[in-house]
Amino acid sequence: MSQLRRDPSQAAELLIEALPYIRRFAGSIMVVKYGGNALAGGDEAAALAAFAQDIVLLQAVGIHPVVVHGGGPQIGEVLAKVGKVSEFKDGQRVTDAETLDVVRMVLIGKVNSDIVAALNVHGPVAVGLSGVDANLIVADVRAGDLGFVGDVIDVNPNIIERLVAEDIIPVVATVGSDVDGQAYNINADAVAGAIAAALHAEKLIFLTDVQGLRANPDDPNSVMAQVSVAMIDDMVASGAASGGMIPKVEACAAAVRGGVTRAHILDGRVAHALLVELFTDGGVGTMVLA
Amino acid sequence: MSQLRRDPSQAAELLIEALPYIRRFAGSIMVVKYGGNALAGGDEAAALAAFAQDIVLLQAVGIHPVVVHGGGPQIGEVLAKVGKVSEFKDGQRVTDAETLDVVRMVLIGKVNSDIVAALNVHGPVAVGLSGVDANLIVADVRAGDLGFVGDVIDVNPNIIERLVAEDIIPVVATVGSDVDGQAYNINADAVAGAIAAALHAEKLIFLTDVQGLRANPDDPNSVMAQVSVAMIDDMVASGAASGGMIPKVEACAAAVRGGVTRAHILDGRVAHALLVELFTDGGVGTMVLA
Amino acid sequence: MSQLRRDPSQAAELLIEALPYIRRFAGSIMVVKYGGNALAGGDEAAALAAFAQDIVLLQAVGIHPVVVHGGGPQIGEVLAKVGKVSEFKDGQRVTDAETLDVVRMVLIGKVNSDIVAALNVHGPVAVGLSGVDANLIVADVRAGDLGFVGDVIDVNPNIIERLVAEDIIPVVATVGSDVDGQAYNINADAVAGAIAAALHAEKLIFLTDVQGLRANPDDPNSVMAQVSVAMIDDMVASGAASGGMIPKVEACAAAVRGGVTRAHILDGRVAHALLVELFTDGGVGTMVLA
Amino acid sequence: MSQLRRDPSQAAELLIEALPYIRRFAGSIMVVKYGGNALAGGDEAAALAAFAQDIVLLQAVGIHPVVVHGGGPQIGEVLAKVGKVSEFKDGQRVTDAETLDVVRMVLIGKVNSDIVAALNVHGPVAVGLSGVDANLIVADVRAGDLGFVGDVIDVNPNIIERLVAEDIIPVVATVGSDVDGQAYNINADAVAGAIAAALHAEKLIFLTDVQGLRANPDDPNSVMAQVSVAMIDDMVASGAASGGMIPKVEACAAAVRGGVTRAHILDGRVAHALLVELFTDGGVGTMVLA
Amino acid sequence: MSQLRRDPSQAAELLIEALPYIRRFAGSIMVVKYGGNALAGGDEAAALAAFAQDIVLLQAVGIHPVVVHGGGPQIGEVLAKVGKVSEFKDGQRVTDAETLDVVRMVLIGKVNSDIVAALNVHGPVAVGLSGVDANLIVADVRAGDLGFVGDVIDVNPNIIERLVAEDIIPVVATVGSDVDGQAYNINADAVAGAIAAALHAEKLIFLTDVQGLRANPDDPNSVMAQVSVAMIDDMVASGAASGGMIPKVEACAAAVRGGVTRAHILDGRVAHALLVELFTDGGVGTMVLA
Amino acid sequence: MSQLRRDPSQAAELLIEALPYIRRFAGSIMVVKYGGNALAGGDEAAALAAFAQDIVLLQAVGIHPVVVHGGGPQIGEVLAKVGKVSEFKDGQRVTDAETLDVVRMVLIGKVNSDIVAALNVHGPVAVGLSGVDANLIVADVRAGDLGFVGDVIDVNPNIIERLVAEDIIPVVATVGSDVDGQAYNINADAVAGAIAAALHAEKLIFLTDVQGLRANPDDPNSVMAQVSVAMIDDMVASGAASGGMIPKVEACAAAVRGGVTRAHILDGRVAHALLVELFTDGGVGTMVLA
Repeated sequence: MSQLRRDPSQAAELLIEALPYIRRFAGSIMVVKYGGNALAGGDEAAALAAFAQDIVLLQAVGIHPVVVHGGGPQIGEVLAKVGKVSEFKDGQRVTDAETLDVVRMVLIGKVNSDIVAALNVHGPVAVGLSGVDANLIVADVRAGDLGFVGDVIDVNPNIIERLVAEDIIPVVATVGSDVDGQAYNINADAVAGAIAAALHAEKLIFLTDVQGLRANPDDPNSVMAQVSVAMIDDMVASGAASGGMIPKVEACAAAVRGGVTRAHILDGRVAHALLVELFTDGGVGTMVLA
Repeated sequence: MSQLRRDPSQAAELLIEALPYIRRFAGSIMVVKYGGNALAGGDEAAALAAFAQDIVLLQAVGIHPVVVHGGGPQIGEVLAKVGKVSEFKDGQRVTDAETLDVVRMVLIGKVNSDIVAALNVHGPVAVGLSGVDANLIVADVRAGDLGFVGDVIDVNPNIIERLVAEDIIPVVATVGSDVDGQAYNINADAVAGAIAAALHAEKLIFLTDVQGLRANPDDPNSVMAQVSVAMIDDMVASGAASGGMIPKVEACAAAVRGGVTRAHILDGRVAHALLVELFTDGGVGTMVLA
Repeated sequence: MSQLRRDPSQAAELLIEALPYIRRFAGSIMVVKYGGNALAGGDEAAALAAFAQDIVLLQAVGIHPVVVHGGGPQIGEVLAKVGKVSEFKDGQRVTDAETLDVVRMVLIGKVNSDIVAALNVHGPVAVGLSGVDANLIVADVRAGDLGFVGDVIDVNPNIIERLVAEDIIPVVATVGSDVDGQAYNINADAVAGAIAAALHAEKLIFLTDVQGLRANPDDPNSVMAQVSVAMIDDMVASGAASGGMIPKVEACAAAVRGGVTRAHILDGRVAHALLVELFTDGGVGTMVLA
Repeated sequence: MSQLRRDPSQAAELLIEALPYIRRFAGSIMVVKYGGNALAGGDEAAALAAFAQDIVLLQAVGIHPVVVHGGGPQIGEVLAKVGKVSEFKDGQRVTDAETLDVVRMVLIGKVNSDIVAALNVHGPVAVGLSGVDANLIVADVRAGDLGFVGDVIDVNPNIIERLVAEDIIPVVATVGSDVDGQAYNINADAVAGAIAAALHAEKLIFLTDVQGLRANPDDPNSVMAQVSVAMIDDMVASGAASGGMIPKVEACAAAVRGGVTRAHILDGRVAHALLVELFTDGGVGTMVLA
Repeated sequence: MSQLRRDPSQAAELLIEALPYIRRFAGSIMVVKYGGNALAGGDEAAALAAFAQDIVLLQAVGIHPVVVHGGGPQIGEVLAKVGKVSEFKDGQRVTDAETLDVVRMVLIGKVNSDIVAALNVHGPVAVGLSGVDANLIVADVRAGDLGFVGDVIDVNPNIIERLVAEDIIPVVATVGSDVDGQAYNINADAVAGAIAAALHAEKLIFLTDVQGLRANPDDPNSVMAQVSVAMIDDMVASGAASGGMIPKVEACAAAVRGGVTRAHILDGRVAHALLVELFTDGGVGTMVLA
Repeated sequence: MSQLRRDPSQAAELLIEALPYIRRFAGSIMVVKYGGNALAGGDEAAALAAFAQDIVLLQAVGIHPVVVHGGGPQIGEVLAKVGKVSEFKDGQRVTDAETLDVVRMVLIGKVNSDIVAALNVHGPVAVGLSGVDANLIVADVRAGDLGFVGDVIDVNPNIIERLVAEDIIPVVATVGSDVDGQAYNINADAVAGAIAAALHAEKLIFLTDVQGLRANPDDPNSVMAQVSVAMIDDMVASGAASGGMIPKVEACAAAVRGGVTRAHILDGRVAHALLVELFTDGGVGTMVLA
């Protein structure tokens, strides 16, 4: 029994703050990109369970969460196990047929299934999807002799909309396929942005392992509370945004330009950052708006 | 900006506590008896506005509140103004035709309309009803030459159910009528209990000006956290429950026996006691259960 | 057993005349303004019962009646009883807070409730409303230091439409409120016209204590069978329409201009004038058309 | 302009009498057996037009009329024209294949089509059926070497119910067929009774060329206002009911026993007898009840 | 047990061919004109039974067949039987009132009823209609003193659409009527075309006693597999299409111009030509397209 | 153009045979167990494409196919690739955590995804599921120290029913999980039977690499056309059914006992055996019935 309950007026104050957010977001779709790196080092299972609890609570109060995930570290582990050494071009892993099979198996057969299982401990609430299901993610090969590396060229959100209408939480593995059924390895951040736009989601939220977008990449105290899509363009052009942050901010910008109201980059290592961001006046991380 | 927001983990803790209650109560009907005495002395308008805010927040998160009210003090004021002196029998006011007119005018034309107006500042959410509307409360004369004092003999909850289905908050003035259209003055607590039972409400909540039911009427430290309907019978029989508390506990017991899951006697003078009771683990006041 | 039944051919003739009107009006909304003055002096209860019977019969054959009422004489009685003497400006009663309380209590708590009770003797068919319910009548203060005298600035007919869709007869007391919940005393004829227009009613019918609109106010034989809205403008300008007839004809004209097909001024003292007007070829009173 | 309209109170009196019947019968099914003999000698077309007007008026006020007809006289005419002489056994016409073809062609292709056409002058309201349509009337051969004379063994009212649900008036020619598609000549009165029972009709009404059922067949002043099904059994057994009246009263009795509320034998020669019977307190003809 | 079943690969091949047609046509309306002449001489009952089987199979796989028929030979037989000799003008039979009665009785009371009965051997699937029902076929008199010979001036397909929505097969006798209910004798081919166009049917199919449309009327080997509406115009103008083929090809052209996708002239003497045409790649007869 | 089309009567004969099956099966659910061994040696991709075509054709004519699959050979390949050597107990592979990961990745991430992709070449018709999705397959550990080898203890068919209601083809990978989210390796044949029973499927069909169930395992000419569930019990007990055939016949028997109308064991190596079995009188393989 926490100290909080001994001060009902403080509880009342927070409820009066939170209830209007709950009302406002009821019925809206929120795309949450869950990155393996959001898991603070150490207890991966506990982090996944906490994440699943937050997602199920969103669902409980009428929000329709859609989870999108990648799985870079886990793919690396299995490639190592089968003794596959990847070639790299311009910093990108060349994906041959054997590598692609590993990517598919790990993303769909392991990471996706693990997240679905963590959610379904709370009841039959989640269903896993990959971009192959009902042709959700249509991809095409990327130029540059990278093998089966692809780019999103279309999203058919119908299957997600149907599941959401049935109060099911879709969990999406970011593998896509072309019209002949050929699968491709695709950047998960880009997929999250494209799906959020196709669904006209209320929010796109990246759970990452950083505090937010920094004005100065080298200064941990320069995290920005909010940023416009135009500023993002400038920061990418100037190099102020760099590395793994680039696909995230570009996906945020694309989603907002595509009709998503707000995009957020949150620190997934902070317990329940998702709930605090959504239901209190105090924001955490960086908000992207038009 | 309160201190609370500076400690997101405390906010997260309360949200994780509150969200399951919000889920559990979504779609359920809660009958709230609002007594004039619940208003802490002094600023009546502010107290009404705070009450209205709580009710609208319940509505916002999918609960269907039904407000029932009396208006004893206000009736007394107008009777005094028209110079009407009431006769009393066995402690009950004899209600002649002129008095009945005042009762109806004050309850329906003033108190009910004031509550509806306070709710509708938030939008067109509330509609006032009296027991005459769609024959909601069917009454018959009470024995004992008390004039137009009546007892509830039937409740037709259909009009409340229709309004609730349209997401409207019914506010009920406790005047009833018999099959010939003759109106009666009825005890408001009894009406609240009968309506809660007829609606198979999830909860019946009395907002009063006491902390709860005392095991010993004279000991303010003897407030009981919960009580069974059987214990209520004993306490009424033994005199442990007395005065204005009798109709409240009897209405609670009748409602619970009629199918209401829980009844509560709360201290309406505590700001937002309704929210704290419903959405946190820490209860306030007395809970009545089977 | 009347003479009529001995001549079936006469009954058949009337039925053949009436049935097409019944078909034509089925499903349409008719706003009936019921004025206390429509009650022929003497037996008020009998007049109300006869009115209630007609309204319930309209409902029975598929028409959706909406009753709007004022209550001038009854307000005067109560003001006298509490010893309140009103100030008048330009022939209008100045409405201070105490007077407004009386207006609300009498209109909502007495006249409205009496009409609803008279209708509900026939079953749970009617529900009372005031302009405060679901913000039905939005008012604002009228210029001229008249206190809480207001004018209709908007009508939100949604609550009436919902009740009508549930086959309930709304009975409207003509009190309005502004966005802060402040109540106002409003002219009942104007409210009836505004509601009829907002509902796109088939008809607006005033039940009055005169035979109809006279071409010459002083000549009882000059009652006009029909009149256009343009003629009404002229008659108001020229003084041919005067006194209490002015708000009625202006409300008729406003309603017809706002989309109501026909407005009628009938003599409410004639038994069942409503039925004869609606269901036979022979009209009574004055019809207003575009 | 009739005298009636000059006395509005008389019109009001009849309306108050008629409207409750209209309410009571709205939505109910009434099977009307229309016999060629109901047509007063002379102007057949005018009689049919008047009948059609009544049926369309019933439809207009929410009743679902179902018309059933025979066509004895018209069949006789065509048989004469083709020079076919019928054999009779026990007073019944033996129906060979050639006669059956004439029966079908006259009932379906002429009488039925004439009635449908008379109704559809008022709009696209009626559709003709025979017992062959959707296997409405399942028949089997009657014993006694009468050829293709059959008896009703089952009614599939589904097609009538569907048309009625679409606000269409079914007009039924009383030809039936067996499971192999073989047609039969069937007594029209029996069909009307069986259809009324299968539809759980509110009423079964025979429009005939007599005033009603007589207690004494020879005494025109002995028409009975009402009769029970038990009395009908007695009258058939005793011979008090005889000739063409037998199938009518037996069909009435069977229908009432099968769940029809009331059956009526009316004088179809009286103009609009149907309307007067249904919508006024004064009945005409004989009412059959349980 | 046929040879076919011993070669499953051949059955599989045909199924793979047929199933996509079944999918494509599911839910679509097909108007089938059934001419008496389509019946190969000899066993009329067997031919009708085979036709009924095909129509019921179409219905079984989700197609909505609408049958339209004439009945020239049967009309001639009855006219002969009643000794009626027709006058002819320009090769057309003058239709006086007596002849019209025969036309109506034969088409509606005999041919239509026979087809409905043959279909309903399979269950209660079919309902007969004539153009008089629900004013399906509105006609007007044709110029030229031909008596009650009429032309289609409008089609009200509503009753067909309602029956089709209830999974009932309408069978239409080609008699029409004008607004006063006067019936007319109309060309059945023209009616079929007009109904197909009004229904926006997928196909209009004529089952005839010829192999198809010949390029050279005298050369049985010149049957055309397909023809455009423009070519039809030319062939009618040049006389290449002649005699009874003219109304058929003109109805086909009118239907295609009115929105029907394809029209077909098939040889009804070939067993199950309808199934082979619809469900295999190999067509039979002549297809008309835009 | 095949020979078949030159003989329309043969095509007609097959259509008349097939169409009633299509009607009968429309709207029914059929569970098809697709075993890797059903693929004839050689061209796996072509066999999968042919299977996908058949399934999509079933869907096209209104059947709801549900595909269930295993993936033994493919699991073996990947285990070999990672150098994992399995321990066996009583002929069963002991499944440790590492092996389980491979099983999940291959079944869900490779075989399931390949089947879904092959179906979705025809449009967005299929969605992959595993037993973890919406808790479809609830499993528990099997006794005997076999590691993560489990048995089906419950099926929640809700997610399949929802997808089927949306005209989507579910493809199920036979991995299950317990209430804590722990995954298990389960026999695919048993899952297929349990799902068919839970869905009250019309049919359960095993596509295998044998001709059917043999009365004598060693006699290829002893394939039984049909077998009862009681006979299956005997054959399992006597050893007449043995090896990989045991789980198949036991799943068939369990499904039929659980309410499935018919179960079938077909030779998946015969092209389009599924279509021939379902839509012609000639069966292939063995049919299991009660």
